[in-house]
Amino acid sequence: MSKHDAVEVIQAKRDGHGLSDSQIDWVVDAYTRGDVADEQMSALAMAILLRGMDRGEISRWTQAMIASGERMDFSGLSRPTADKHSTGGVGDKITLPLAPLVAACGVAVPQLSGRGLGHTGGTLDKLEAIPGWQADLSNSALLEQLEEIGAVICAAGAELAPADKKLYALRDVTGTVEAIPLIASSIMSKKIAEGTGALVLDVKVGTGAFMKSIEDARELAETMVALGNDAGVTTVALLTDMSTPLGRTAGNAIEVAESVDVLAGGGPADVVELTVALAREMLAAAGVTDVDPADKLADGSAMDTWKAMIRAQGGDPDAELPRAKEEHVVEAPTSGVLTRLDAMAVGMAAWRLGAGRARKEDPVQAGAGVVWHARPGDEVTAGEPLFTLLTDEPERFERALASLEDGYDISDAGSDFTPDPLVIDRIG
Amino acid sequence: MSKHDAVEVIQAKRDGHGLSDSQIDWVVDAYTRGDVADEQMSALAMAILLRGMDRGEISRWTQAMIASGERMDFSGLSRPTADKHSTGGVGDKITLPLAPLVAACGVAVPQLSGRGLGHTGGTLDKLEAIPGWQADLSNSALLEQLEEIGAVICAAGAELAPADKKLYALRDVTGTVEAIPLIASSIMSKKIAEGTGALVLDVKVGTGAFMKSIEDARELAETMVALGNDAGVTTVALLTDMSTPLGRTAGNAIEVAESVDVLAGGGPADVVELTVALAREMLAAAGVTDVDPADKLADGSAMDTWKAMIRAQGGDPDAELPRAKEEHVVEAPTSGVLTRLDAMAVGMAAWRLGAGRARKEDPVQAGAGVVWHARPGDEVTAGEPLFTLLTDEPERFERALASLEDGYDISDAGSDFTPDPLVIDRIG
Repeated sequence: MSKHDAVEVIQAKRDGHGLSDSQIDWVVDAYTRGDVADEQMSALAMAILLRGMDRGEISRWTQAMIASGERMDFSGLSRPTADKHSTGGVGDKITLPLAPLVAACGVAVPQLSGRGLGHTGGTLDKLEAIPGWQADLSNSALLEQLEEIGAVICAAGAELAPADKKLYALRDVTGTVEAIPLIASSIMSKKIAEGTGALVLDVKVGTGAFMKSIEDARELAETMVALGNDAGVTTVALLTDMSTPLGRTAGNAIEVAESVDVLAGGGPADVVELTVALAREMLAAAGVTDVDPADKLADGSAMDTWKAMIRAQGGDPDAELPRAKEEHVVEAPTSGVLTRLDAMAVGMAAWRLGAGRARKEDPVQAGAGVVWHARPGDEVTAGEPLFTLLTDEPERFERALASLEDGYDISDAGSDFTPDPLVIDRIG
Repeated sequence: MSKHDAVEVIQAKRDGHGLSDSQIDWVVDAYTRGDVADEQMSALAMAILLRGMDRGEISRWTQAMIASGERMDFSGLSRPTADKHSTGGVGDKITLPLAPLVAACGVAVPQLSGRGLGHTGGTLDKLEAIPGWQADLSNSALLEQLEEIGAVICAAGAELAPADKKLYALRDVTGTVEAIPLIASSIMSKKIAEGTGALVLDVKVGTGAFMKSIEDARELAETMVALGNDAGVTTVALLTDMSTPLGRTAGNAIEVAESVDVLAGGGPADVVELTVALAREMLAAAGVTDVDPADKLADGSAMDTWKAMIRAQGGDPDAELPRAKEEHVVEAPTSGVLTRLDAMAVGMAAWRLGAGRARKEDPVQAGAGVVWHARPGDEVTAGEPLFTLLTDEPERFERALASLEDGYDISDAGSDFTPDPLVIDRIG
């Protein structure tokens, strides 16, 4: 006879009680083994979403998900490790320049990533736009690349926190994604199992993020920082704005190109600012305080590490990137100052053009996406290009254009406009 | 492309919004067809449990469940119809004497019933203790028996509200049974689809009932009365006590025997009181006001109808009933007045002795159950029998005895004791 049963655990949370360690250990393990059915776990997830969990429950839930699979160990490396996780945003290509930049500063970056779902792009999808590049690495190849080059961006193996993989897929179809305890434990179980020594969280807040309010973003960040530090991973979080998309591009190949611009010492100011800010946090969390990442962008060593990292996974960093077959230019309807560019509107447009996927088995288009020619605060002129839409399938333009329609505001020239800060707060 | 998707409907209820008619029609139909998965419906059921539904939503949900299957029609009968539904209690054999009694008064009773699950017994399980009796009837046999004898107690066919059958089985394993909107729509969809002209609800409240508080019971009763009357079924409800079990027996064969005692003009006073009270309500709701059901008990015509009803379904009303192979007597530990007899404790004991089932595919024992030799208010003497426990499997005695241990109180003789009223309120 088993220690617990699913209905007992569901009823306890439904009625607002805390779950015991034993209940949590049992239900996560039984779900992974298939003894708790999907329809039972989804009812529990909804009860957790509506009733909440305290820090102790979230911590135990996270540990139970870690215990469902293997843990990696980077303690044999000759340098410290640090990883970054973003809760997901539009135009968020930061991982691409950040991993080689931090590696060039002497800290190894084991960036085990996922693919995109919905309006936020996936890091692996972006890198797969590079001819030849492979997302899948064996554990030994991963360790060797980390030791030799210092940076790896690859697919997380199925053996890391399998309970989380199963639960994440379930939450996606049952309206239970937006539960802070489940978001926090999902992210942190993978990052702790991955074995990184330090972790910097980029918690997005705004229209283009999962967390629409600063209060929710702060609660999520505080929860994750506590989980990481309790598990022995030095963890800090930045709360960053995602009401405006990052940089000037949202798509796969076009975000790779923008990342390469940053590594070459150029690129959009906001992407550079956030890349350097996150790099400084990762270095500090890993105990490296005598290197300024801005120098490593300027002297070309971050670019060298990028090229080595791409080559090590079969990619050609100098190859021409795929281009969309069709483009459509949206002109500014009036002259003035762009005062708003909505991240969700841009993200939806890129997704509808084929840059993202609706289901996890869908393919993505390497060349599809949106380029915006102005950022909030910039002056625009009537009739000049405001957006360029890219896709291989021109029938996608109409719905993408509909997404953008209410996605921006242009005010009279000379209007007062103060952009919101990109880094809103730091927690840790 | 379908009109809605499951995640959108779940999210709406999760976030506290009312569901539209179109969302409700779609989700109930899609779930019945299998296009909405069990794990999606269980998350929605949990959101409904925790967020609630307004009367309009419950009404639409009920209509959608009715629309998932067939409706019966008794309008061709020569007499009016009335049915009774109890929300389930311990020792609740009232349907057995009630259906033939009301039929003997000139109103036809199409009592489509279920089997018991957990600590409350099922009407069909009780009748199946009678040698030869069959629960399954074709629609034409049902109509013929209703016309000729006036009373039918049989299994509800799979074609009545199939959405409810599927949803009920799901709720049972996902901790979502206790949602008033879902309980009300489950009961009323079956009763409205069954086609009865009038309906009397016996809504139980107390330790042995689903509804532990008078407020919850009243809310459930008011919700169901409104649903019935809105659908053209004259509906009233009695709120009745279920902190004490009904009569003196809980089991299958022993409850049949007690019911026959009532039909013979005897039986426990509380069973007689509730049977007559519900009969009067059913007759009034069906428009028959010139017959007193107490007379039909006294003159033997209810008994004649009972025998005809049992014979029509293959049973022998004069056959000896099955008896349990083993019995165990619990003696009163002290002398005094029995001041409390807990319905849940007695129900659990009967269930553990084999009278009920843990899973819907389990068999039940016809002879198993509990007889209590005193009711609250009665004097008891130390060493005299207080309970008799019956089962075919003596290894079941220990756990049944444990259920009863804290299930009663005996106070000093002469203590003040006023029993609670059996019928607490009337709604309609």
